Amino acid sequence: MLNKAISKLGTRTPSPSISWLMQKSLEKPGLVSLAAGFTDNFSLPLDHVQSAMSSILSSQNAKPSLQYGSTVGDPELIRLTAEHLCASDNISSGASDLAKRTIITNGSQQLLYLTVEALFDEGDIIITEDPTYFVFLGILQGHAVQTRTVPLTQNGIDVIKLEALLEELKRSGSLPRLKAVYLVSYFQNPTGISTSAETKDRVIELLRKFEPDAGHPLYVIEDAAYRELRFPGTPDIPSLLAKNSNSDRVIYAGTYTKPFATGARIGYGVLPEDLFTVVYNLKGNHDFGSSNLLQQLLRHAIQEGLYQDHLKTLQATYEAKTRVMIGAIQEHFPKSVTWQPPLGGLYVWAGLPNQTSAGKESKLFNQALEEGVIYVPGELCYAPDATRSVPLHEMRISFGGAEKAKIQPGIQKLSVAMNKIGIL
Amino acid sequence: MLNKAISKLGTRTPSPSISWLMQKSLEKPGLVSLAAGFTDNFSLPLDHVQSAMSSILSSQNAKPSLQYGSTVGDPELIRLTAEHLCASDNISSGASDLAKRTIITNGSQQLLYLTVEALFDEGDIIITEDPTYFVFLGILQGHAVQTRTVPLTQNGIDVIKLEALLEELKRSGSLPRLKAVYLVSYFQNPTGISTSAETKDRVIELLRKFEPDAGHPLYVIEDAAYRELRFPGTPDIPSLLAKNSNSDRVIYAGTYTKPFATGARIGYGVLPEDLFTVVYNLKGNHDFGSSNLLQQLLRHAIQEGLYQDHLKTLQATYEAKTRVMIGAIQEHFPKSVTWQPPLGGLYVWAGLPNQTSAGKESKLFNQALEEGVIYVPGELCYAPDATRSVPLHEMRISFGGAEKAKIQPGIQKLSVAMNKIGIL
Repeated sequence: MLNKAISKLGTRTPSPSISWLMQKSLEKPGLVSLAAGFTDNFSLPLDHVQSAMSSILSSQNAKPSLQYGSTVGDPELIRLTAEHLCASDNISSGASDLAKRTIITNGSQQLLYLTVEALFDEGDIIITEDPTYFVFLGILQGHAVQTRTVPLTQNGIDVIKLEALLEELKRSGSLPRLKAVYLVSYFQNPTGISTSAETKDRVIELLRKFEPDAGHPLYVIEDAAYRELRFPGTPDIPSLLAKNSNSDRVIYAGTYTKPFATGARIGYGVLPEDLFTVVYNLKGNHDFGSSNLLQQLLRHAIQEGLYQDHLKTLQATYEAKTRVMIGAIQEHFPKSVTWQPPLGGLYVWAGLPNQTSAGKESKLFNQALEEGVIYVPGELCYAPDATRSVPLHEMRISFGGAEKAKIQPGIQKLSVAMNKIGIL
Repeated sequence: MLNKAISKLGTRTPSPSISWLMQKSLEKPGLVSLAAGFTDNFSLPLDHVQSAMSSILSSQNAKPSLQYGSTVGDPELIRLTAEHLCASDNISSGASDLAKRTIITNGSQQLLYLTVEALFDEGDIIITEDPTYFVFLGILQGHAVQTRTVPLTQNGIDVIKLEALLEELKRSGSLPRLKAVYLVSYFQNPTGISTSAETKDRVIELLRKFEPDAGHPLYVIEDAAYRELRFPGTPDIPSLLAKNSNSDRVIYAGTYTKPFATGARIGYGVLPEDLFTVVYNLKGNHDFGSSNLLQQLLRHAIQEGLYQDHLKTLQATYEAKTRVMIGAIQEHFPKSVTWQPPLGGLYVWAGLPNQTSAGKESKLFNQALEEGVIYVPGELCYAPDATRSVPLHEMRISFGGAEKAKIQPGIQKLSVAMNKIGIL
């Protein structure tokens, strides 16, 4: 039944893939979920949150935590965020400049939504990595943004192919519709690949080169949601914020959610000045500010070192879980399946032989459900892009949410499913 | 400097009025704010939140509170919300039906935003009360929704004028662009007026009558943000949900924020089934679910009676503050100023003689700042509507956020300002 009262945005906005995955999970109780991008349940920082809440609510200045804050966010949390970014990116001065362009959001997800709202009209173009973060694709679809895609190399987006695409957009007169390139730059969801500093520089350089033909600024949306989830010993890579000369072209999305407690839903964005104002205005209409109580929680956790302390635990936890997963994969997966060990994040990206589907309707997906395990079909991570067909042979396997003891059996079940459908 | 990369939505979305008011406040430290729609600071439920958090985080089943939840919200909080609404509206059965159409949001504000996204394309029409909630007007402006306005009577929207407007829209062929009527139905922001049950019925009846000419459902958005903030002894009025026959035309926006702790930002919406799905999909893209920790907080507070307990305190507190404000107004305001005592909510709406401006640029507003008091100029609450000019002579005076001891001096300062500019 078509309801003609519903808006174009409402009509276009797809049912979240997550709902479909959850539905599948519910139909099979006891399923091992290697699908959910959840935080490790075992290591959730109950004690830290307990102690932070207790301190906040019993302090002399407790009441503001239960009151409205401002739309932009708690000034002290913003200051800490800017300082944290300056420390991560070796920026010797400039925290106060960064703070002026920082906004606190409901997870980094809200920042992504606000950014799409701020930049894109129906029919505008975005360039994304191929594959990319599937919930972001949902936002784009809702807003009728045309997605053009560029494959990944081991160093992030393929800059040679990016240049070729920009040339093509220039030739076809489409550059004025291009607004931004979207990079999930650390331990990418879904592939686990990180973007090298050189690649980042080159992307900005290319966008600057093509700006005159676009007739307006071309931005990079740097989604750094997984930045902190690097395994012990993995070096950090500078973000696009590290070079001051990029500051007018970079939208940086960060989160305190995944590295601490996803139930707290506090993220942040750093934006060029004029875009900051637009996103701020939009946020005023969305909710005029994220929960002050949650912001105080994160502020306290950072100030007291609880956040940093937990992060170390979490990094080690994920590395240990990855080792278990990789060990099981090595032992059980058929030889024709390709994958590589991640250095951070939450995901292993695996590829079946090209002609074999791991997609939503595939034999493998259904057989895996039969065996009692669920993964994210890789096809969900591919944007609609008429210039290529959607690869069906990949899968995203998460070690984030699954209990450590269930990872080995989960991979084993998946391997049984692969064997049963004849993958060797 | 015009940045041509910014979207139409981004360009249209206005700077929040709240920012302007805050800026004015910051310029004058020590100002008595009768502007902010904040919750009473003194009575914020620190102990209740402390005890709830402690119980939640030390319970056997604590971890889900720090984990992602589902997009729709915590099932138990949804069940409690539906039961609460059924109890309020004397619905003997149907809580489980209501629960299926209930979604938890970041305050009721987010529900309003999602609803506008779900229903309105650029150029579509909404009918609002005149005056109305000014942040909602910001959302409409951002989405280029045409606003047509209908004055208020003591019983809510003027249904005779509403019918005339619907007739006019029909004659002009504009009805297919109309999507909804927006009512702030309890202790309206800014006037304090509540919509009678008869008025609500009549609005639905009128919309049903004109639907064939619209060619699609015509909805009522019932914003019940202030419903629970009725003073002791004030009877509740049934909402539009009370009649099951309305269920396919009513979007109900409620909140746990204002009656408990605004820093917690948890609201909810009940929607007709097909709109529910659209709003759910949009919420998936916005943030895939409100903070689970905050939802557990509210769930616990309701289950343990802490919420209800605090609400009683708050209702009495606001009544006492209103008495102080009304007493001071009676004593100090010039005789030509009109106003009426509210029975709930957070606001007194006052009118100067018609030819005198209380607007943003008025002598009175500036003189009031000089004297050390700030209010919300009534003009901010009037939608752009080419068929009438914006009244400038009114003001919204809030007893919510101001300290009780500052209400009398605040009103006195405002009266001095009135006297100084010659209002008698």
